[in-house]
Amino acid sequence: MSKKGWKPRAISGFPEWLPEERAVELRWFDTLRGIFESHGFANIETPSVEELDALLAKGETDKEIYVIERLQSEEGDDKSSRLGLHYDVTVPFARYAAQHFNALDFPFKRYQMQRVWRGERPQEGRYREFYQCDLDVINVDHLPLSFDADLAEVVLECLEALQVGPVRLHIANRKLLEGYLTGLRVEDYVAATRILDKLDKIGADGVVEQLQSIGLDQQTAERCLALSEIREEGTGFADRVRALGVENELLDQGIEELLFVMQHLGGHDSVIADLSIARGFDYYTGTVYEGKLLEYPDYGSICSGGRYEDLAGSFIKRKLPGVGLSIGLTRLFAKMRAEGKIEAGRKCPTDVLIVLPKEDHRPDLLQLARDMRSRGLNVELYHAPQKPKKQIAYAVKKGIPHVWFPPFGEGKPHEVKNMETGEQVVADPANWVPET
Amino acid sequence: MSKKGWKPRAISGFPEWLPEERAVELRWFDTLRGIFESHGFANIETPSVEELDALLAKGETDKEIYVIERLQSEEGDDKSSRLGLHYDVTVPFARYAAQHFNALDFPFKRYQMQRVWRGERPQEGRYREFYQCDLDVINVDHLPLSFDADLAEVVLECLEALQVGPVRLHIANRKLLEGYLTGLRVEDYVAATRILDKLDKIGADGVVEQLQSIGLDQQTAERCLALSEIREEGTGFADRVRALGVENELLDQGIEELLFVMQHLGGHDSVIADLSIARGFDYYTGTVYEGKLLEYPDYGSICSGGRYEDLAGSFIKRKLPGVGLSIGLTRLFAKMRAEGKIEAGRKCPTDVLIVLPKEDHRPDLLQLARDMRSRGLNVELYHAPQKPKKQIAYAVKKGIPHVWFPPFGEGKPHEVKNMETGEQVVADPANWVPET
Repeated sequence: MSKKGWKPRAISGFPEWLPEERAVELRWFDTLRGIFESHGFANIETPSVEELDALLAKGETDKEIYVIERLQSEEGDDKSSRLGLHYDVTVPFARYAAQHFNALDFPFKRYQMQRVWRGERPQEGRYREFYQCDLDVINVDHLPLSFDADLAEVVLECLEALQVGPVRLHIANRKLLEGYLTGLRVEDYVAATRILDKLDKIGADGVVEQLQSIGLDQQTAERCLALSEIREEGTGFADRVRALGVENELLDQGIEELLFVMQHLGGHDSVIADLSIARGFDYYTGTVYEGKLLEYPDYGSICSGGRYEDLAGSFIKRKLPGVGLSIGLTRLFAKMRAEGKIEAGRKCPTDVLIVLPKEDHRPDLLQLARDMRSRGLNVELYHAPQKPKKQIAYAVKKGIPHVWFPPFGEGKPHEVKNMETGEQVVADPANWVPET
Repeated sequence: MSKKGWKPRAISGFPEWLPEERAVELRWFDTLRGIFESHGFANIETPSVEELDALLAKGETDKEIYVIERLQSEEGDDKSSRLGLHYDVTVPFARYAAQHFNALDFPFKRYQMQRVWRGERPQEGRYREFYQCDLDVINVDHLPLSFDADLAEVVLECLEALQVGPVRLHIANRKLLEGYLTGLRVEDYVAATRILDKLDKIGADGVVEQLQSIGLDQQTAERCLALSEIREEGTGFADRVRALGVENELLDQGIEELLFVMQHLGGHDSVIADLSIARGFDYYTGTVYEGKLLEYPDYGSICSGGRYEDLAGSFIKRKLPGVGLSIGLTRLFAKMRAEGKIEAGRKCPTDVLIVLPKEDHRPDLLQLARDMRSRGLNVELYHAPQKPKKQIAYAVKKGIPHVWFPPFGEGKPHEVKNMETGEQVVADPANWVPET
C-alpha cells in the first residue's frame, strides 16, 4: 500500500488514542453500560446519518452539520434526500421512536453511546467527532416526574464510577423560569432565557446589559438576574424565589417540580438547584440539568439534558413526553487525559505469555494456550522459539503480568513468573489462576 | 421538536435494529471482543474520517467513498485537506501504525470493530454503513508465518461462537498463484488474478473466455483454470498443483507457505485449501482467506483477509509486514436475521421489576433497588403506584423475568414471582439470586 507524497498526521478535532488509553476508554464504556443496564435501560444504535430535513428541523444548528456526498456521484442518485451526519443522538432518537412506535414498549428507557459530528472549529474541549452517551425515558401521553430524579441519580452514579473527581449537577426548571419571566412581563422569553444562560460566561453586568438591549428596563433586568443568582443545595431555593415577589401558576408549578426532584435527590450532596441554568435548546419544558467538574469550573458542561413535552413532535399523532441526560464522554475523557488524571491501561489484554522453547513444542503449547483460554484467561503463545530473555522482554514491553515456562525436560514442572514481584513458582496449568 | 412536512423513514443501506435485536448484536460484539482479547489482541479505534488523499492512495475505490462537507462552509475553511469517511479500517490502521510507530510495541496485535461507509447502491448483503471487525498482527521487518494460522484459528473460533451455522474458511496463497501464472508466462498477472477470482460468479467457461480476452491462448487459459479448480481439505492440494507441471521458486514458496498454514490448522474441518481464492485488492502477497456460510453459498464472503508485505508503505522507513482478517459483522448479522436464525434478545436488560404498592413506599423501595443493584442485578422500580395487575403487565410486555413484591403489611415477607413458570415464592432481598 504505497501512498506517495502523503504523510500521516492527526486530523484536527478528530481525537484518537493509543491502545493503553483506548483500554481505559473501553472500561469507561463498560462502566456506563453496566450502570445504565442495571437501571433497566436498553441499548439502541441509530445510523450515523439522518436525512438533512430531519437534522435541520430543529433549527439554528445548520452551520454545524456535516453533509455526506459520494465522491463520484452517478446519474440517478437521489438528490432529493441529502444526508447529514447526526450532531447529537436526540434527533435520531426522535425519528427512531416515531418510526418504530408500534414495535416499542412504553415507558421506553433507552441508552445510546455513539459518535456524533459537528463541523465546528476545534478548540479545547470541542471536537468535530466525539462520543455522547445518552439516557432517555419516554412515554405515551404522560411521564411521571419521578423519572426526572431517577435520571439524575443514574448519571451521578456514572460520574462517580468513572472517578473523574468531584462533580456537581446543577438543576433548574424551565417552567419556573418562564413563569418568573412572564410574571415580569418579559416579552421575548426565549431571548431572555438565552442571555440568562450566559451568566457564567459574561457575568452579572453583561447579563443586565444584554437584557436591556432586548428591551427590558434596568429594574426588570436586575430582577431577572436576581433569579439567576439563586444557587441552593436542598430545597432552600423555593423560599428565595418566592421572596422575589413574582406570582403565577406556571412559576408555582415549576417550583413544585423542582422541589420534588430536589427532595428525591436528598441523599446526594453533589446536586444543587441553580436557577442560572436554562439550556439553549428551546424544546426543554421542565427540569433542566447541567453537570460540571468542580476542579475545572471553566471547562463547562460535561453532561446536560432535561425534560421535554413531546419528543417526536409532528412525526406521529401521539404525544411522547420524556426526560433525558447526555454525558459528553469524549469531552470528559479528553479532559481527564489532558490533566494527567487517567492512569494508562494495559497495552494489551494478555494475562499470560507462554514461552515457546523450541519450534516442535508449538502444537502442544497451542493446546495449552487453548486450555487456559477455556478457563477465562487471556493467553498468548510467544510467536518464535527465540532466547527466553527475548521472550520475557516482549512481556515486559507489553506489560503482560505473567510469563509461563513450560517444562524444560521430562518430568519437570510448569512454572509461572509474576512480572511485577519477580517471583517464579511451580504451577499447574489445569487450575492456576492469577492473583488479583 | 416539531418537524413539519417530514415523515420518519428508513434510509436505504443504513440498517438499524429494534432493542431486542440490538441486544443480540451487542452480545455478538461482546463475544468477538472476548475471543480477540483472549488471544492477546488490543483494541483501537480510529476516527471515522481520513484525509481523502490517504483514502484514495489505494486506488480503484474512489467511486465508493463518501466525502464530508460542512453544510455552511466559512471563509478560512481548509480546502486542501478534504475528508472522507473510511471505507474499511485497513487504510486507517496503516495510517495509525505509521503515525504512532514509536509509541507501539511489536509484534502489534490489534482488533478494531467499527462502522465503515461505502457509497454503493444498496442490495441484499450490501450496505452503505456497516460494522467490520478487523484483526491484524504487524511486525517490523519480518512476521512469522505462524500468525497466518493463528488468525484463521481465531476467526473460526469467532464464527463458531456466533452460532451462524456451518462455515468454511477458504485459504489460498498469492505467491503460489503468481508463481504459477508467471510460470505460464501470463503477462498481466494482476488482471488474470482478478478474472480467476470470479470463478464462483462467472463459472469455468466465463473465466476461460475472459482470460482469452486479455491475450491468453486457450490452452494457457485452461491451465490457469485447472489451478483455480483445486479445492482440497488438508494438504492434498500440493500434489495436485505439482501435477500441473509448472515449476519455479515463487510457486514452491507459495506451496510451502500454504502447506504450513494447512498443517497448523489440521484440527479444523472447516478449513479448505481453495486455489480459486485470489482476493481483489492487490496488496496481498501471501496467504489469502475467504470465509463463507455453507448454507448460503451465494451470499458470498462473510470474512476475508490475507498477508501483506508492508502495511504502512512509504509512510515510514521501516517495513511493516502483517496479516489480517476482517469479519463482516453487519453482513453476517443481517443475513442471520433475514433468515430467521436469530432468536430475538430481551427488550430490556431488567432482571427484576419491583412493584410499587404506594407512593410513600418509594424511598424505601428505591433503596431496595440500589441494594439489589449492588449485588449485580439489573433492577427497576415500577414508576407509579398503579394496580399490581398493571405493573405486572409492564413486566410481561418488556419480558422482565422476575417481579418482586415488597411486604404488603408489617411483618409480612418479600415475595418474588418467576414470570416464566408463574411460581411465586418468599424471598430474602439481601441474598436472592435469579435461577439461571
